[in-house]
Amino acid sequence: AATFRASEHQHIRYNPLQDEWVLVSAHRMKRPWQGQVERQLLKTVPRHDPLNPLCPGATRANGEVNPHYDGTFLFDNDFPALQPDAPDPGPSDHPLFQAGAARGVCKVMCFHPWSDVTLPLMSVPEIRAVIDAWASVTEELGAQYPWVQIFENKGAMMGCSNPHPHCQVWASSFLPDIAQREERCQLAYQSQHGEPLLMEYGRQELLRKERLVLTSEHWLVLVPFWAVWPFQTLLLPRRHVRRLPELTPIERDDLASIMKKLLTKYDNLFETSFPYSMGWHGAPTGSEAGADWDHWQLHAHYYPPLLRSATVRKFMVGYEMLAQAQRDLTPEQAAERLRALPEVHYCLGQK
Amino acid sequence: AATFRASEHQHIRYNPLQDEWVLVSAHRMKRPWQGQVERQLLKTVPRHDPLNPLCPGATRANGEVNPHYDGTFLFDNDFPALQPDAPDPGPSDHPLFQAGAARGVCKVMCFHPWSDVTLPLMSVPEIRAVIDAWASVTEELGAQYPWVQIFENKGAMMGCSNPHPHCQVWASSFLPDIAQREERCQLAYQSQHGEPLLMEYGRQELLRKERLVLTSEHWLVLVPFWAVWPFQTLLLPRRHVRRLPELTPIERDDLASIMKKLLTKYDNLFETSFPYSMGWHGAPTGSEAGADWDHWQLHAHYYPPLLRSATVRKFMVGYEMLAQAQRDLTPEQAAERLRALPEVHYCLGQK
Ligand SMILES: O=P(O)(O)O[C@H]1O[C@H](CO)[C@@H](O)[C@H](O)[C@H]1O
Ligand SMILES: O=P(O)(O)O[C@H]1O[C@H](CO)[C@@H](O)[C@H](O)[C@H]1O
Repeated sequence: AATFRASEHQHIRYNPLQDEWVLVSAHRMKRPWQGQVERQLLKTVPRHDPLNPLCPGATRANGEVNPHYDGTFLFDNDFPALQPDAPDPGPSDHPLFQAGAARGVCKVMCFHPWSDVTLPLMSVPEIRAVIDAWASVTEELGAQYPWVQIFENKGAMMGCSNPHPHCQVWASSFLPDIAQREERCQLAYQSQHGEPLLMEYGRQELLRKERLVLTSEHWLVLVPFWAVWPFQTLLLPRRHVRRLPELTPIERDDLASIMKKLLTKYDNLFETSFPYSMGWHGAPTGSEAGADWDHWQLHAHYYPPLLRSATVRKFMVGYEMLAQAQRDLTPEQAAERLRALPEVHYCLGQK
Repeated sequence: AATFRASEHQHIRYNPLQDEWVLVSAHRMKRPWQGQVERQLLKTVPRHDPLNPLCPGATRANGEVNPHYDGTFLFDNDFPALQPDAPDPGPSDHPLFQAGAARGVCKVMCFHPWSDVTLPLMSVPEIRAVIDAWASVTEELGAQYPWVQIFENKGAMMGCSNPHPHCQVWASSFLPDIAQREERCQLAYQSQHGEPLLMEYGRQELLRKERLVLTSEHWLVLVPFWAVWPFQTLLLPRRHVRRLPELTPIERDDLASIMKKLLTKYDNLFETSFPYSMGWHGAPTGSEAGADWDHWQLHAHYYPPLLRSATVRKFMVGYEMLAQAQRDLTPEQAAERLRALPEVHYCLGQK
């Protein structure tokens, strides 16, 4: 029998953080691509557009006028999926028809007053200001809500409807599905092994090295063993930190710098403004914030769709929606490619 | 306090078949859409293209020449994600680094010799031939493999790389993730309530009526209570049937006819060839096929991405990838819209 080689032989891998499996079939990268090719966004975004509701001084859908902000800017989403006062659907009359109350708030956070920058093109102190704003909004909304989901959809391919650099914050009265799964998995790991799952995972990846993308004094970036998206990464603090607000000033500066490096590598991979959805996960907040959440470790997930070039993406469709996630290169191959890329942005370096 | 109305007030709903929650925020349909608009495929597909590897008489990537088939045509995928002979990765050295063996086969099934038709434009007997081919391939591959996943990716938006009407069949040596979840949920329901989950669910939906789209003597189509995609549907036999090959000739004819109606409604919704991924789920097969799988009920899921028009889709991105699925109209609203649509295809009816 042939010797197993991950880059040649399909196999399945387990995601212990979210209790899911992925099919890894690296030999599939050889197939030609005849499917949809994305449009490349060649149009340049103007630095300031008075009609763009995210710009300083612009008027939003509800008639409010944005301040002439010069750092980050947080405001209520004008079309929120979660509102603070929805009534309860009441008890279910059948186990197959279960509904529950959902209350919350949705906010939008602009990263910068200019529309023509993205995080990797911003300075480290400007990114640091974003991190501080993330920590504050977690603190503020976390006082009331058990889950504060910070996420960024970057690029039209990821459903982003506005080119201005921004993220969203949706806080909810319930623990969302994926938060529940991470809670369950991390709690079980801690009770079985006596330490947080992601602390041991980060330590192991530092030893094994093959999936590391970037390391700094306080942070790690790696392609997880169970990554689903082609160039998916996991960003982890080295210290045991449960939530964003706990980060020290030094850890925040270091985070700004490693984020800039990671996002620069992403842009450099296909010389394009790399689309992704990313988001932060930390211990639940709200009235139970004081409970024992030591099994949680703060982390960010980056889920970028591109596979082969700036215009050819991975589609998570039929098999993935009906059966199981499937990927076409190994996490180790993805990490190697990301590691090899320069840390100077292709738009900024001299040619 | 206001009285709860699902179409006005956000809430969460539970999917008992796959153990997942969805956030329903119907008021969100009011927001304007400024994001990505899909290209509309206006180019007409030629009925026969000798360079298209799915056409009768064409030469495929591996040099094989397709027969001049005049019905369905099944062949091995030239770029399979699953191959029959991959070696085993061997035992894991750490609980956070678990991999497993994956073996299988990937096949492609052409529905029709012509490239310019889709299922709703085919005749009922032609669709019946597809159903027979689905049943046979389930039987054939199910003799060896525990899971045979039949799925169709329709439309470039769903990663479909070839316009010729076809589906895929991926059979695997393992129970894929979603199959495992449906197994767990259906088994638990049966042991607690003494009957199959989907038998009781179908019965309840027939009584409640508000989510029904189509009914026939032997089949139901409904928008499930927990639907995630805007116009997602579930297709169920009325009789307790565990797998496709068990369907009687009469049930197969009736299935062909209800599929034609459903897919015609889909195309009529936005007067476009409606993109979707769909697939069949039935009891596991392989060496354990003889075990007790009575908790399973055969069903097909349809997952179509379009939300507002032929060019505006729902993006399952940031919040959905990091926290929880979210939908912008209620399943009841979606069912009502689908119910009201004509059963004659907009391309075929007289104007
Ligand atoms: O039809 P293809 O080219 O085999 O591939 C398509 O379906 C597969 C199964 O859902 C996906 O893994 C691919 O990402 C998608 O492009
Ligand atoms: O940025 P928007 O317009 O709020 O919306 C975008 O992100 C949301 C949260 O992931 C998704 O539900 C929408 O489908 C997507 O278009």
